[in-house]
Order: sequence, then structure tokens, then C-alpha cells
Amino acid sequence: MKAIAVEPGAGEPELIERPRPDPEPGEALVRTLRVGVDGTDHEVIAGHHGNLPDGADRLVLGHEAVGVVEDPNGTALEAGQIVAATVRRRPNGVDNEYFARGEPDMAPAGKYVERGIVGADGFMAEYFTSPADALVPVPDEYASLGFLVEPISISEKALEHALASRAAFDWHLDTGLVLGNGSLGLITLAMLEASEIERTYCLGRRDRPDPTIEMIEELGGTYIDSRETPVSEVAAEYEGMDLVYEATGYAKHAFETVDALAPNGVGVLLGVPDDWDFEVDGGRLHQELVLHNKALLGTVNSHRGHFEAAVDTLAQLPEWFTDDLVTGVYGLEEFDHAFETGDDVIKTAIEFSSR
Amino acid sequence: MKAIAVEPGAGEPELIERPRPDPEPGEALVRTLRVGVDGTDHEVIAGHHGNLPDGADRLVLGHEAVGVVEDPNGTALEAGQIVAATVRRRPNGVDNEYFARGEPDMAPAGKYVERGIVGADGFMAEYFTSPADALVPVPDEYASLGFLVEPISISEKALEHALASRAAFDWHLDTGLVLGNGSLGLITLAMLEASEIERTYCLGRRDRPDPTIEMIEELGGTYIDSRETPVSEVAAEYEGMDLVYEATGYAKHAFETVDALAPNGVGVLLGVPDDWDFEVDGGRLHQELVLHNKALLGTVNSHRGHFEAAVDTLAQLPEWFTDDLVTGVYGLEEFDHAFETGDDVIKTAIEFSSR
Repeated sequence: MKAIAVEPGAGEPELIERPRPDPEPGEALVRTLRVGVDGTDHEVIAGHHGNLPDGADRLVLGHEAVGVVEDPNGTALEAGQIVAATVRRRPNGVDNEYFARGEPDMAPAGKYVERGIVGADGFMAEYFTSPADALVPVPDEYASLGFLVEPISISEKALEHALASRAAFDWHLDTGLVLGNGSLGLITLAMLEASEIERTYCLGRRDRPDPTIEMIEELGGTYIDSRETPVSEVAAEYEGMDLVYEATGYAKHAFETVDALAPNGVGVLLGVPDDWDFEVDGGRLHQELVLHNKALLGTVNSHRGHFEAAVDTLAQLPEWFTDDLVTGVYGLEEFDHAFETGDDVIKTAIEFSSR
Repeated sequence: MKAIAVEPGAGEPELIERPRPDPEPGEALVRTLRVGVDGTDHEVIAGHHGNLPDGADRLVLGHEAVGVVEDPNGTALEAGQIVAATVRRRPNGVDNEYFARGEPDMAPAGKYVERGIVGADGFMAEYFTSPADALVPVPDEYASLGFLVEPISISEKALEHALASRAAFDWHLDTGLVLGNGSLGLITLAMLEASEIERTYCLGRRDRPDPTIEMIEELGGTYIDSRETPVSEVAAEYEGMDLVYEATGYAKHAFETVDALAPNGVGVLLGVPDDWDFEVDGGRLHQELVLHNKALLGTVNSHRGHFEAAVDTLAQLPEWFTDDLVTGVYGLEEFDHAFETGDDVIKTAIEFSSR
């Protein structure tokens, strides 16, 4: 079968041949429909994040998969069922407490592999196998958008953790700022707009006319150009934010978020920046966190429950939004277009087969 | 009546005369028994934190009060009842949403005054008045230690918020590190030791023999000398901490805490440092927060519910602990000793009257 693989840090993704996998007991065989591309794939390609499976010289890419169950192999799944696949797997198939309790997203380094990212081949192949409990049913009508379930699940987790951190007191999410107008930022903005929130903002650094700015405004949010209003000045220029969602991977944003928050606000960090030394007014930031009961949380990955919530969320996203979000779906003969970037590219996917 | 007041930043506390206050409707009159002294008092005296009441040239100190109800004044309190007083009050007596819902600790700047700290006279006087709902009953047998209810309540809130932030997943508080071996640090260590926690650590910079190191070890904790093991190396030298409780006000600790945490751990910050620019490896800290689901929370002050929990906690602290913790209780004729510092001073209080 065909697969898309890369030698991280040393080349571009290429089409390779791989044997079609056989499911082990407890695993199903899935025929891949579509796999989304995101910033993490680009970091993996560049060699900035993730690593090869033991002994391999190539990594099959892809962690945002939707497929159709080809062979349930005795599991509770049904042939023909549409499924999205979670990303973390037991290292060497050996169970541990995090997988046992259904929270692989909370496992520390070494206690997991991540398909298409850390030490395990991804889903960019015509078929893949997976433990049945890592395959989450998706209604048939969302098969073509099912590759969005994984990125949505990332925000389901981040928002769940953010809300939990404010659960010890009476807190209302009235104002929210998303840092970054990439696909994850726009998805999160749409999720916030579907909540009881009053006002949303999304920060980027693009000139008008721009399709992401149009989407931000169509959703009901306010676009903030970071070249005019840095994150640290957002509270003064606009208003303090109950929630800041960082999806840029720009390390200074983690610290500037403290200033952007309203009293009792929470910032969730999702980016994975490289090492970078810089100066901060650490005394003032510390004081600001304390005197205004502010919180900063990092979150990574997501578990099955977040995928299930994401399936519901996907069904609630406006059709115009997903239409505008997905700027390209490419077949195997032109898969390289899915890795191109540019101001007119928001979210792409590669199609391995159709239903 | 006699009171202890200061001109912040311009002198030492002095004994002054004030008229005995009359309770307004809804307020009770309290005869003060004891008022504790803590680091915040020293910051107020130095002019580093807090401010004078409008139009005043002196601030009556003290925010850790226990007293006896002298005149219930028609409230539900009873004459002779022992009470501890919460600290935040409505500014100019005008209600707002935070006080209305019993969460003045979550009010932003401008929405509260703090007795003895921010814009309102404190409790270091022979009598004080207070809204009855800001007076929390203390059992008679703890009258002499009731000035510890306020500092304990600070940690009740901090720990409540820390636990809430980890409530979205299966989390166990097995290891805890307290930064700072002052009275609040030692109290918090004792609270942690009374929980299901497995191992505790307390960081200071004192040479042996030292009374606080002896208390740390008597509680069952491990003393860490920060001159030998900086906070950033604690995880490597000892182990990662599920909880770090910062009670030093040393701004770099807020950032080093990220490294001291175990995966999925939470750091609570309580110190109030001054402005201080310094360099951090912000990229690595950001990445560490994200990839290991870590959290940093600031918390300040506490509400009535935390005071009520603190009364229960006070009753559970070992007698040897409170005996060793309170190194001096001074009458009005020698009140200045209560503000002296030194390696043999842990917690002091001023006695205004006895039961």
C-alpha cells in the first residue's frame, strides 16, 4: 500500500510503499479516508519535534485521521463504520496506568508514542491498524470532515482543563482571546463563539484582505493585529480576557498572556516552541498572577472522551465555516500540495480513498 | 483605646490612641485578643505593599485577628463568642458582586479594601468592629491560637484552587514542595503532612542547627537548602513535585517552579515580589508547561469558607507544632518585640487582652 513518509529534518514528505498491516487481537483494520495536515506535521518534517520509531529511517506522517472500518477483527466495531483515531499509543504495546485509565494524554514522556509524531508511524497510509478503543465512531455524514475531530479534541481538552482550574469559584467566561489565526486558532474561536461567551478576539499578523480575518469577523470575533497591538497591550487597548488560548508556539506569548488576562482569568498554552532565552519582568508577572488570582496551564494531546466531545462539536460548526476552513483536499497523486503553506492556505487534508 | 499604627515606608509601628469604634447596623463589636504578625505586615511597614485609608496619615496594622464578641449589636453572634475576622471589606461599605456572593478574595483591585493592608485600618487595636458575616466562630479552646486561622485560610484557598485545576483528570498529590520555611511555609507543610501525601519537602536557606529545619523534619518532611539545590534542580536531585507551594515572594521561584514540578503538577504562587527584570529560557518553560500538562496558579486572600476550613485544620495541627511555631506573644507594653525578625523568630503575635 502507499504511505507518505519523511526523514525528519532531512527532506520533504515522499510517497513510499509499505506492506498493508494485519490487525493484532483487539485491533481493527481501518481503510484511511482522509488525514489532515497541521503545524505539528511541519515541525516533524523540519525535525523540530517528534522522533522516528526505533530502528526506522522514515516516519509515516499523519495524526488527524478519519477512516472506515475495513475489518473489525472480532472487536466491537462494525465493518463500514466511520471512525476517527486517537493519537497516543502504548509504547511497544505495553500497558501503563495512563492508558489503563483512559488518560494517555496525561502520560509523561516515555510512557507513550504518538502516531505520526513521536516514535510511531502515523496514519498517512491507505490502511492502518489500531486498538479498537482508540477508534471513535463518527456519524456517516461527517466522514469527509472527520479529520477535524483530532484538532477539535485538542481544544476540548484545553477548554476542559481551563474551566476546571476556575471551578473553585464563581467564574464566567465572558471574554476570550485566541492567539493565532491558523486552523486550530480558528476552530477554537468557532468553539468559543458556540458557547455562552460574550466577546471573542483573535490575534494574528496579517494584512487585509485576508481569508482568516474574514472568518474571524464572520464568526463574530474581533481581529487584533499583533503588529499594532502586542499581546501585552490587549487588555489596555481592548479589555482583559477571561480566557487566553495560545496557539502560536511563540514563547513570549506565554508570558504576555498574564497581562492580557482579566482578573481571575486563565491562559491555556498549546504551542511547542524551541528553547529561547529572553528577559521578562518576572517580579511584576509573578505579582500579577498572585494579586489577581490568574492561572497559566499547559495542555497537550487529548483522550477518547475529548474525541467524543469533538464529534458533537464538529456537528455544530457552521457549514460555511468548515467550507472556508478546509482550503484543499488532495489525492495521493498531488499529496505534496497539502504541505504547501501560504496566506490562502488554512487547513488541508490528503485523501487516501473515498467512501 | 490603644492601637498599633504605622506611616508606611516612613517609620516603625507605634502605639497610638484611637476612639473605640461603634458598630454600625449589621456589625458586631469585638474585643481583640491576639493579632498575628507576618511578612505582609513587614511589607506594609516598609511601604512595599498596601496603602493608607483615604485621607489618613497612619494605618492601623494587623490582619490576623482573633477576638471575643463584646457586643453582638443585634447580629446572630453571641456575646463572649470567640471569632476570627476575615480581611477584605467592601470599599466605602458599598456592596459589589464579589462580596454579594461571598467571594471577596476574587475581587479585583479597587473592589475591596483589606484591613491592615490596603486602604483600611487593621485589627491591632483593643477593639474593632466588623460585619457579622466576616466573623468566623472559633472554638473556645483555640482562642489563644485563633490568630493562626487567617494564615491557614490562605493555604486552604491555595490548595483548593490547586486541586481544582487538576480535577479534570486522575491526579494524586504524592509529592509536595513548599518554597520557604517561614511561618506560612511551615503551616502549609503541616497541612500537607496531614493529608494523604507521601513525601514532602521544604526549601529554605538556613544552616543547621535551626528551629525551622527541626520542625520540617519533625513533621516528616525533607529540608532542601536552596544554596545547595536551587529550585530548578530539585526534580533532578530529589524528585518531581506534584505540588509546589511558593511562599517566598522571590520572583525567580515562580519560573523555576515549572522545572520542579512532576508531569501534570501544579505550582501555586503566593508571594508578592517587586518588579524585577531577569532572563528566562522562556521557550523551554513554555514547552515544559505544554508537553507535561503543568499549571501555575496565583492565589491571594481567602473567603469565609476557607476560614471555616482553617478552624478545622487548626484543631488538627499537632500541639508540639503550634508550640514551636509561635515563638513569641507580646503584650502592648512590649509590642515592638513582635516585629523583630531573626533565625529564632518564626511566628509572633500581640496580645491586646486575655479572655
